[in-house]
Amino acid sequence: MEKVKVIEIKRSVFADNDKDADNLRAELKEKGVFLLNLMSSPGSGKTTTLIQTINRLKDKIRVAVMEADIDSDVDAIKIKEATGIESIQLHTGGMCHLDAAMTRQGLDNLSLAGTDLAILENVGNLVCPAEFDTGSCRNAMILSVPEGHDKPLKYPLMFSICDVVVINKIDVMPYFDFDMEKCKEYIHMRNPKAKVIPICAKTGEGVDEFAAWLLAEVEKWKK
Amino acid sequence: MEKVKVIEIKRSVFADNDKDADNLRAELKEKGVFLLNLMSSPGSGKTTTLIQTINRLKDKIRVAVMEADIDSDVDAIKIKEATGIESIQLHTGGMCHLDAAMTRQGLDNLSLAGTDLAILENVGNLVCPAEFDTGSCRNAMILSVPEGHDKPLKYPLMFSICDVVVINKIDVMPYFDFDMEKCKEYIHMRNPKAKVIPICAKTGEGVDEFAAWLLAEVEKWKK
Repeated sequence: MEKVKVIEIKRSVFADNDKDADNLRAELKEKGVFLLNLMSSPGSGKTTTLIQTINRLKDKIRVAVMEADIDSDVDAIKIKEATGIESIQLHTGGMCHLDAAMTRQGLDNLSLAGTDLAILENVGNLVCPAEFDTGSCRNAMILSVPEGHDKPLKYPLMFSICDVVVINKIDVMPYFDFDMEKCKEYIHMRNPKAKVIPICAKTGEGVDEFAAWLLAEVEKWKK
Repeated sequence: MEKVKVIEIKRSVFADNDKDADNLRAELKEKGVFLLNLMSSPGSGKTTTLIQTINRLKDKIRVAVMEADIDSDVDAIKIKEATGIESIQLHTGGMCHLDAAMTRQGLDNLSLAGTDLAILENVGNLVCPAEFDTGSCRNAMILSVPEGHDKPLKYPLMFSICDVVVINKIDVMPYFDFDMEKCKEYIHMRNPKAKVIPICAKTGEGVDEFAAWLLAEVEKWKK
């Protein structure tokens, strides 16, 4: 028996993704469900950050997670085991991103009634996921210290579409040439309004701030 | 004045990339030029690894580098300043990968006569670059320790098409939950023939082995 539900999502047939995404957002607004789209490079710590964040929120609001990957179901299982919340795995069949129609296929497999916050963990990639509106209410990304502070220079679109940039793995800053002030400067070059939150998902440092931001956004959305 | 040549490459118009890639490889064989396609996630250390490798090879063979990025020219400048060899920047105009036609546009801007080894540093991305044959003679990838040992489970195609997997940043292994033996096992699940070389590009540890592998491949190609 599978430990979590695994959905093979199909390539989208909609020509106008932006319109489809707007429709999805309107449906979510009506249902009172907030959708967060979380993006990053492979290995930046999306799943660990989610576990820490969900454990801070799950007694206040109902949370469900969709883990998108090309293959494997390790992340959905990790989330379920570490938080106890509803967690499903989406397989993209080789696709490097999700669009609105693909996201809807995932949402259709969650028990949305009563869910306040649905989180999409997008495919690990700093390029393509930024190009496709998933229908999410907010976009978040994680940049981890080992990746380097110059990433906003190289992946401009990703940084420009994110409402919040979480900088993870700050515990290993002494071992890497990572300049936090330069990083913030480069992020704000791309997106002056982006909120920047340094955290260590392993120890939980800084996660309270991210969880508080997310909770406030969910509450605004449901008003 | 620009410090390095920056080429805006155009989207490919060829329908059959595989055929185009085979043609490019045949042309390179005739010219005696070996093309290495180097791929990885953003921030895994491609540029630093190249600097260390080139400094071990540049007195034996003539090397030239093409740095592909969506934006910025920081990598091409770094390579030029640290090694003194010919280094150009390719801008992909938002594209997340290079195909054979795009690679040819880069090669056309290098002084290929007399060059033994041309290196393409592909866009940082574990998904799309694996899907497009660039016309390279060999594919190499870097996985860095902070990304985690489970990446071959999540990005199967990338690991299956690479002749060599360099595992970088082994100096920070004590600070991450990275299992080297598990990582090798997962890589060989995807590709039993893949050569795995652990290195630390920052200190140079292990780079001799990668440089020796590359030199041997160049010599085989030119025979």
